[in-house]
Amino acid sequence: MREVAVIGVGMTRFGVSQNTSIEMFSEAAMEAINESNLKPKDIEALFFGNVLGTHEEGQMGMAAYAAADIGIPNIPTTRFEGVCATASVAIRDAFMWVASGYCDVVLVGGTERASVMDTPYATRTFAMGSDSYYEGPAGITFPGVFAMLAHLYAHKYAIPLPKLKEQMAMVAIKNHQNGKLNPKAQFQATIRDLMEARIARASQRGQPVPTWADEMEFLRDIKVNPVIADPLQLYDCCPFSDGAAALVLASRDKARRLTDKPVLIAGVGQCSAGPLHNQKDFTRMKARILSAKQAYTQAGIEPQDVDLCELHDCFTIAEIVATECLGFFEFGQGSQAVEQGETRIGAKIAINPSGGLKAKGHPIGATGAAQACEVVNQLRGECGKRQVEGAKIGMTDTLGGDACTICNVILKRGW
Amino acid sequence: MREVAVIGVGMTRFGVSQNTSIEMFSEAAMEAINESNLKPKDIEALFFGNVLGTHEEGQMGMAAYAAADIGIPNIPTTRFEGVCATASVAIRDAFMWVASGYCDVVLVGGTERASVMDTPYATRTFAMGSDSYYEGPAGITFPGVFAMLAHLYAHKYAIPLPKLKEQMAMVAIKNHQNGKLNPKAQFQATIRDLMEARIARASQRGQPVPTWADEMEFLRDIKVNPVIADPLQLYDCCPFSDGAAALVLASRDKARRLTDKPVLIAGVGQCSAGPLHNQKDFTRMKARILSAKQAYTQAGIEPQDVDLCELHDCFTIAEIVATECLGFFEFGQGSQAVEQGETRIGAKIAINPSGGLKAKGHPIGATGAAQACEVVNQLRGECGKRQVEGAKIGMTDTLGGDACTICNVILKRGW
Repeated sequence: MREVAVIGVGMTRFGVSQNTSIEMFSEAAMEAINESNLKPKDIEALFFGNVLGTHEEGQMGMAAYAAADIGIPNIPTTRFEGVCATASVAIRDAFMWVASGYCDVVLVGGTERASVMDTPYATRTFAMGSDSYYEGPAGITFPGVFAMLAHLYAHKYAIPLPKLKEQMAMVAIKNHQNGKLNPKAQFQATIRDLMEARIARASQRGQPVPTWADEMEFLRDIKVNPVIADPLQLYDCCPFSDGAAALVLASRDKARRLTDKPVLIAGVGQCSAGPLHNQKDFTRMKARILSAKQAYTQAGIEPQDVDLCELHDCFTIAEIVATECLGFFEFGQGSQAVEQGETRIGAKIAINPSGGLKAKGHPIGATGAAQACEVVNQLRGECGKRQVEGAKIGMTDTLGGDACTICNVILKRGW
Repeated sequence: MREVAVIGVGMTRFGVSQNTSIEMFSEAAMEAINESNLKPKDIEALFFGNVLGTHEEGQMGMAAYAAADIGIPNIPTTRFEGVCATASVAIRDAFMWVASGYCDVVLVGGTERASVMDTPYATRTFAMGSDSYYEGPAGITFPGVFAMLAHLYAHKYAIPLPKLKEQMAMVAIKNHQNGKLNPKAQFQATIRDLMEARIARASQRGQPVPTWADEMEFLRDIKVNPVIADPLQLYDCCPFSDGAAALVLASRDKARRLTDKPVLIAGVGQCSAGPLHNQKDFTRMKARILSAKQAYTQAGIEPQDVDLCELHDCFTIAEIVATECLGFFEFGQGSQAVEQGETRIGAKIAINPSGGLKAKGHPIGATGAAQACEVVNQLRGECGKRQVEGAKIGMTDTLGGDACTICNVILKRGW
């Protein structure tokens, strides 16, 4: 198997877009291709992630139309769907086609339009990622699943729920701080910014001025941070987003001739799980543990070697649990690690320096590719104020559904 | 790259089913696994094709749930969608994961439920396989696309339309004859059977007895064979179907220890095209010509070496055009070849000995896998009355959308 490099990355700003999924993908793809010092005609195959295209835009076979839109209609194009892990699954597959020697240069990425749906409809639509025959009819949605996870976590490790809620809030505060440093993030405000804006607005309008002492008190206020599914409040949840992200992969030999910013794919992992009702312990997701193990083994590294990780913080509790399953902290220690600041940029391990799904946004079919873009930019040292200094090894972690598909990619700097 | 064998195949009967897509897939998968002398736990990864699951059953991430249903939740599972070429794309990808040496034994296949939709809704749903932003609003549907193809073909090669209609009818007659010999085909009646049943029924009921001289006259009668999109009549069109099909692939070394029915994947090809309005000549589909060329080159064979081909006869004209693009007949000679019986079992090349999409049925996400199952069974000499005697090399051809994705697989007998 050959070594595979990432030679170009691109992404749209995440948020609310008037563009189609294909138009957004083309923007990201052309950015990645231009950065690779290539032309579209140099791309040999497209690995394309999208979840809702058939359902929401009425378009099957979108991969083919995406390739045509950037002027390369007659290449093999393959569409992948693994719920929120979609683009990561596409990356792992693209990696294999280059590693095997069959292709030299391929394009991979994902795109999604979700903001067009209002919240109740989007929540119901996303719930198709849970088992639709047995769990769907019971009313399960993702806020509900992750609210149950928070209760289970608090119970299992005997953490008082108000304490855990505070630790979860710290995930949101951190990720909004990181997101403010990322020009492509959906949210460009810290939680403190949001609090101060509320105070200023009340003052301007001559209304009673709120007296929140700090962000934590602001987040405890259910008037500004309503309960979504107890114990999760609004700022524990990532947004619905539009966006696209893309990467150009090349064999190491080809890459050396095209770029002087060496980033290699060191390891990949992927694993599924059955429906939630068949999973033994959702705080220790077996699919994630097995997927990460594959990636670590292939990369020949241990969790402590990872400098930064872009992981699946669809809800704040999801970030905490992920940091444990990936081996960065002991089981039951993840929430305390957040509290102690160990997941900030510059601390033990930088978790979601991009702002994560929470602040950067979560256009589901694009998320895994956007995570990989951030890791690549970090390893190149191109992340400005949110740069993880000296980052040599970075990792992505993407969770589809109720862990029905987990995929990990480990990237490293240098040839 | 290692050689890859097919060591087990399985499929449901195609037609109308009360089962879910996952239940149908499990039936096909277990048949394939049992035939491979393996247990589900021996499967290392699942490559899963499905088109309408999100739209029609409200299930995203179906690959993961499918693996769980046969008792192997914690493996990598990947869902593919390439409109009607879906399962073939999955097979090509599964091939690569084994050929590269990363996996030894994998499961691949597809499943679909389409019969639950009535014809107008199904037609509109399937039309999502055409370009939805520019062509969909113009009212394009697949019967319309292939009706235009028939007109174009007649015009291009100066074949009088009544003549071409007769040649297209001969495709239907042949494929129904083949399908009657396939216990898993949706339709178990020849066109003559259908004609005779009509005559008998009229006679029993004391109604005027029709006086069709033969099948051709029967098919000309728009009372029994109504016009769908001129010049296509009902019996020029494949049905909407439910069904699933699956194959177990293994490295050659592993396969030799498990089976004494040697069938190897000799070559694969895949190519896309942009929307129909960008394609230069739909009678000479560039994506198909390029895809087939890849497969022939990898297999080291020429079209004339192929003993049988399961190809994409979604409409009768589609079969004629496919036989030309794949190189079995000169451009413009395909319709005459049908008339001269050159595509029957036992003639120059057996086209669709299974009955094809036309008579076996077309559960879109399963079709490519069912084609491969038929080719494998033919190469093993296990097809009974529809056996292509001495078949050594067989091929599949699957067309997604308006040729937006084409995929070919070449299989050969022997180690």
